[in-house]
Amino acid sequence: MDFFRGDDKRAVEAKEEAQKIAWAPFVFQTAKALKALGILKIVDQAGEEGYTTEQVAHHSNISRYGARVLLEAGLGSHIFYLTSDDKFALSKTGFFILRDEMTNVTMNFVNDVCYQGLYYLQDAIINQKPEGLKVFGEWDTVYEALNDLPPDARESWYAFDHYFSDVAFSEVIPRVLKHKPRMIYDVGGNTGEFTEQIIQADHHVKVTLIDLPGQIRTAKEKLNGQLDNRVYFHPIDLRDQEASFPTGADTIWMSQFLDCFSEEEITSILQRAKGALTDDGNLHIMETFWDRQRFEAGAFSLQQLSLYFTTIANGNSQMYHSKVMINCLHEAGFYVEEDIDQVGIGHTLLTCRKKR
Amino acid sequence: MDFFRGDDKRAVEAKEEAQKIAWAPFVFQTAKALKALGILKIVDQAGEEGYTTEQVAHHSNISRYGARVLLEAGLGSHIFYLTSDDKFALSKTGFFILRDEMTNVTMNFVNDVCYQGLYYLQDAIINQKPEGLKVFGEWDTVYEALNDLPPDARESWYAFDHYFSDVAFSEVIPRVLKHKPRMIYDVGGNTGEFTEQIIQADHHVKVTLIDLPGQIRTAKEKLNGQLDNRVYFHPIDLRDQEASFPTGADTIWMSQFLDCFSEEEITSILQRAKGALTDDGNLHIMETFWDRQRFEAGAFSLQQLSLYFTTIANGNSQMYHSKVMINCLHEAGFYVEEDIDQVGIGHTLLTCRKKR
Repeated sequence: MDFFRGDDKRAVEAKEEAQKIAWAPFVFQTAKALKALGILKIVDQAGEEGYTTEQVAHHSNISRYGARVLLEAGLGSHIFYLTSDDKFALSKTGFFILRDEMTNVTMNFVNDVCYQGLYYLQDAIINQKPEGLKVFGEWDTVYEALNDLPPDARESWYAFDHYFSDVAFSEVIPRVLKHKPRMIYDVGGNTGEFTEQIIQADHHVKVTLIDLPGQIRTAKEKLNGQLDNRVYFHPIDLRDQEASFPTGADTIWMSQFLDCFSEEEITSILQRAKGALTDDGNLHIMETFWDRQRFEAGAFSLQQLSLYFTTIANGNSQMYHSKVMINCLHEAGFYVEEDIDQVGIGHTLLTCRKKR
Repeated sequence: MDFFRGDDKRAVEAKEEAQKIAWAPFVFQTAKALKALGILKIVDQAGEEGYTTEQVAHHSNISRYGARVLLEAGLGSHIFYLTSDDKFALSKTGFFILRDEMTNVTMNFVNDVCYQGLYYLQDAIINQKPEGLKVFGEWDTVYEALNDLPPDARESWYAFDHYFSDVAFSEVIPRVLKHKPRMIYDVGGNTGEFTEQIIQADHHVKVTLIDLPGQIRTAKEKLNGQLDNRVYFHPIDLRDQEASFPTGADTIWMSQFLDCFSEEEITSILQRAKGALTDDGNLHIMETFWDRQRFEAGAFSLQQLSLYFTTIANGNSQMYHSKVMINCLHEAGFYVEEDIDQVGIGHTLLTCRKKR
């Protein structure tokens, strides 16, 4: 991945880029307001002919002044372009801000969950705590806060989580089943999505879902009726280094789970996983690593998202470089047997075995 | 100016650009924290060889985790680049964020004055009031609030104002004096900078400084001792449409003043200026117009700055397109006799005369 290697900008371009960064919060809030006030949609309807400020003000029912400052700011960030007779038309960038689901899910998450708290990024780094969370109230982590967040923040958080977690498990389940597992631990199994799919895909395998008590309650409700005596539950707080796993799994599954923990915590969790796993068992880890992305925008997004963990979520985890995770695996006594990129939306599947 | 004409991005580039906009607040706060925590300076010292995360953590005295998330986020926004052995080196963009005064003055202003209030941009547009100002307290405009802003916000506001107002008046004073003025009204004369320079440049001209009572007090202190019986003061709130100018000026000077008013207010001020001006007198207006900039970054910055007026300053003014201002001039009964761009840092000097 060579997206970030070398620096081929000319000085004048670099200076422009620095200016763009300096005004970046304006660019973001302009895009957000243009979308929320319906202006992107209105300008889109004008097609390549475009609309004047007056036409946009008329159709959007906002003041001519309000329409003008937003249109002009959006022109600066190339959300619009000027037609040959100086009307405003929607650019391709503007089109994606209007229509692209990923962009919209991200913008809502960034605005409703992160924007205000990000002001405290520097404090979060210094104090090693998610200092931005205080804009919503007094909690240690966002996970404890979720039920009490303002409705728009809660909704945007879940929409973002759902959009990026909605992995095609169907794509990886055959890779897990080819090892003929009999007892799988679904660690950080959350609402039981993976558990449900794998017991349906194999009529003999048993699964123990391991997560916090709250998640276990939700998963039990969801899986109710399909349990079929093959699903077990083990509530546990894995942050507690004394909390051990049950033993006897020949397969351990962790999907988008370890990124919620610090390096030290990851190593500790993996050590305990090792103790629970049979000697010839497999540990499968599915994660999104920024260094394994096909597109620069994918790497960029994950690198930024890390600071949500720093400032809002927990103060000590991130979207990792794969090397960091693989180091933790080695330290905990595993080696990587198989390493497959581009599973789902930019995920990597690491299949690991115990070192002898 | 063709910066904003047409749309030549490919769809894949436009989608990347939309993603960059969606994460823009992260890009900004990362740059801010990297600078404030000394990391840009440290990485700069490593030169082209670069530093590892561990080296940066060591030299900056922050945690390895903190250094890593900031370095990686900065990599995403090309503030750093990776060397051939995967160390972090400062890019040209990073260099400007570290060293360029304009970038730094802007970033401090955006962070300390605008960032939090910008969250309320949409409300400001709908309610036609600077709704973002409430993050500091209850005022109608930022001008009333200035003395009571938090120290960092106040300092950043004045630094920004000073940096961009610090026009080379020396460059334009000969253009004013060539008309052999005898009585100049320095409207919105603020602390008296222009007044001071022009009475020194011409030993016969008289000046009446017209501004709010608070500004007049400051200007009087500053000009104390140099008054020489040639400087008069006229305190007035020009927003009050009944407040008329004194009469008898053969020259009226307005520098970076009209951008603090709405279109309707500008027309009203110009109408009153017309009443005060002798029939063959000159009205000189010095402004920064976004459509008259030589560099796209200049136009872009002014387009963004408009939303500071919308959200924080007063809710109804902006950095104008020159056409809007020229329309106001026509409506008030002036025509533009001379129109000169590229005075100072991207300023335009409009010399206007009364229509017959």
